[in-house]
Amino acid sequence: MPTDTPPRGFPVEEFETRVDKAQAAMLAGQMDAIVLSMPQNFRYFSGFNSQFWESPTRPFFLVVPREGAPIAAVPSIGGPGMETTWVSDIRTWPAPCPEDDGVSLLDGILSGLPRRFGRVGWEMGRESIIRMPIVDFDRLRRQVDGIEFVDASPLIWGLRMVKSEREINKVREACRIGSDTFDLFLGRINYGDTEVEMARDFRKTAFECGADNAPFVSVCSGQGGYSQVIVGPQETAQTDGQIMFIDTGLQFDAYFCDFDRNFAFGHIDDAARRAHEAVWNATQAGIDAARPGITAEDLWAAQNRVLEAAGAVSGNNVGRSGHGLGMHLTEPPSNMPGETTVLRPGMVMTVEPGMEYLPGKMIVHEENLVITEDGCELLTRRAAREMPVISA
Amino acid sequence: MPTDTPPRGFPVEEFETRVDKAQAAMLAGQMDAIVLSMPQNFRYFSGFNSQFWESPTRPFFLVVPREGAPIAAVPSIGGPGMETTWVSDIRTWPAPCPEDDGVSLLDGILSGLPRRFGRVGWEMGRESIIRMPIVDFDRLRRQVDGIEFVDASPLIWGLRMVKSEREINKVREACRIGSDTFDLFLGRINYGDTEVEMARDFRKTAFECGADNAPFVSVCSGQGGYSQVIVGPQETAQTDGQIMFIDTGLQFDAYFCDFDRNFAFGHIDDAARRAHEAVWNATQAGIDAARPGITAEDLWAAQNRVLEAAGAVSGNNVGRSGHGLGMHLTEPPSNMPGETTVLRPGMVMTVEPGMEYLPGKMIVHEENLVITEDGCELLTRRAAREMPVISA
Repeated sequence: MPTDTPPRGFPVEEFETRVDKAQAAMLAGQMDAIVLSMPQNFRYFSGFNSQFWESPTRPFFLVVPREGAPIAAVPSIGGPGMETTWVSDIRTWPAPCPEDDGVSLLDGILSGLPRRFGRVGWEMGRESIIRMPIVDFDRLRRQVDGIEFVDASPLIWGLRMVKSEREINKVREACRIGSDTFDLFLGRINYGDTEVEMARDFRKTAFECGADNAPFVSVCSGQGGYSQVIVGPQETAQTDGQIMFIDTGLQFDAYFCDFDRNFAFGHIDDAARRAHEAVWNATQAGIDAARPGITAEDLWAAQNRVLEAAGAVSGNNVGRSGHGLGMHLTEPPSNMPGETTVLRPGMVMTVEPGMEYLPGKMIVHEENLVITEDGCELLTRRAAREMPVISA
Repeated sequence: MPTDTPPRGFPVEEFETRVDKAQAAMLAGQMDAIVLSMPQNFRYFSGFNSQFWESPTRPFFLVVPREGAPIAAVPSIGGPGMETTWVSDIRTWPAPCPEDDGVSLLDGILSGLPRRFGRVGWEMGRESIIRMPIVDFDRLRRQVDGIEFVDASPLIWGLRMVKSEREINKVREACRIGSDTFDLFLGRINYGDTEVEMARDFRKTAFECGADNAPFVSVCSGQGGYSQVIVGPQETAQTDGQIMFIDTGLQFDAYFCDFDRNFAFGHIDDAARRAHEAVWNATQAGIDAARPGITAEDLWAAQNRVLEAAGAVSGNNVGRSGHGLGMHLTEPPSNMPGETTVLRPGMVMTVEPGMEYLPGKMIVHEENLVITEDGCELLTRRAAREMPVISA
């Protein structure tokens, strides 16, 4: 473990800044409050960091009013943990309580807020979910007199997209951990192991390298290339002619890295070698293009030009070539046609070109970077230009 | 790794049985179909096993009609992976597509179903979420002519609560992995390490013992007891007088164990020792009581009698003393007053009494079991009666 690990958590001023920005955006968006229920959004404004979201039993709510301090409405099990955060207005209900899991409590809070616009923002839109039973949400929506529930997801993602220095430090550490893990893992790969065994060894290595958690270790493979990147590991042995893809989202203090590497076993076909070269070059074109002022579509186009020049004809099933990154493995914006979001300093992005070079055979490659004042900083340790070949 | 690891995945007949049961329940519940969007529900009926749910960008849908085969409506990135499952009717849309992420596709499927009841079940109720933007759900709800969306969560949980032999084998393996991990970890604990370091070492050990993933490793501690069990690990060093709690959800083939152990450092106070004895005895009373025909409330009462006899007065913030367990870390039913669900063979339950024995000081203990024809089988290796004391 390196000694320059960034501190965990955030000082109060970080949360105050986030709330200030959210309140300014609420005024512009004519909302009297926003309600956060998604783990990452709840954490963004409160600092409450828990793995307990694995349990679907109890919802948690944070109300950020247009003026004043946030109000937490949490099940009793969350009360003492909330007290360790900067949030001081904490209201709990005895939970689980199937008849009324926070609905009346939240109704009371929302009904009691100063009302100027009569609108409350929720996580209703793109890349958002409402983490409560929808029958309860519907009930609340009917029951809270004279308040319209509106979509606050553009407001929330607009804030979360641009990371603070402290957040960038956490993603940088996650990327350091991921880079060290891939380097160490390369020397440990057992020829002939299955995807399942590879994933397990990769995770062991990640914890040696300082990961807090390894929620996402996708291992997929196929003869001369793989057909998909999200269902795996399976029990396929890595022997001669296999190409194995490992995509990983490792966490440091709840912030993710998200990048992948490719490995050949025994030998590598020319077609796969050329495809890897093309996605490596496309990644480089993305890194070279990444700067403030261009759009996420531009970042896609920079990569796509290289892929087209290399003979890619069909696109691929991923549907985009990278995305935002932070407390979620994938965040807005998407690098794809039609995505007009302008890149700004502090945005952490993945560059992720994929190429289907034969029917059912694809190679995907990925690096992570942060947009700076005049370009970008690569956060991952750049992959070798040549795909490593593991011998028997 | 033991050689008797259960096989991964399920044969087609397992899914056919699940769909048959769901279709019988749909007829009884007057639904023309159910739609699954939660990862665990999607997997339950399709076999699609992915970690990609970490990305909130794209929804996935499985439609199980009242008659006939399931229909998958998935983003393009999920197409090839779906083809490896037993589902043969796979429809994809090019995604991400913020303007229409699956809504029109799903509308077409639902509108085309044979209509007898005009009702379609969704994951709308208890311990369920709908994993799509609610603006899209609202749009679909308005747009699908003459079909009412109703709550199918009791139907879905009713099926999932009772596990098949193959499912029980997977939970048993997860519990074996968890038990081995706690045993091995006990010999490796470094006095003075922080909760963060303990969690990392615990996870490393879990992967050595065969875990596929370790989504939940909650480490909480305090002097003479802890005040809460869900926010941790933090940077608290484990030195004299600390009591450390580790609760873990480790996965084998996407099935969880969920149990905890307690550790004292340096010495242990009499109050904590007595509280541990009480929760150990309460756990034993739960294990002894667990059998078909009793309710989840009875399972709570068996534990609670022991806690009350030991002088527990205030209850605790957890709000229940155990719950169902499977593909979710916590599933229905809850062991608590008013929970009338009757235990049946095949139900996997946790027994989890907690006792606040001084203000802000609690001890929680937990084991996992499966209800059998005439009692229960303990799936975890029973904790030692005495809390281990780690010396400097």
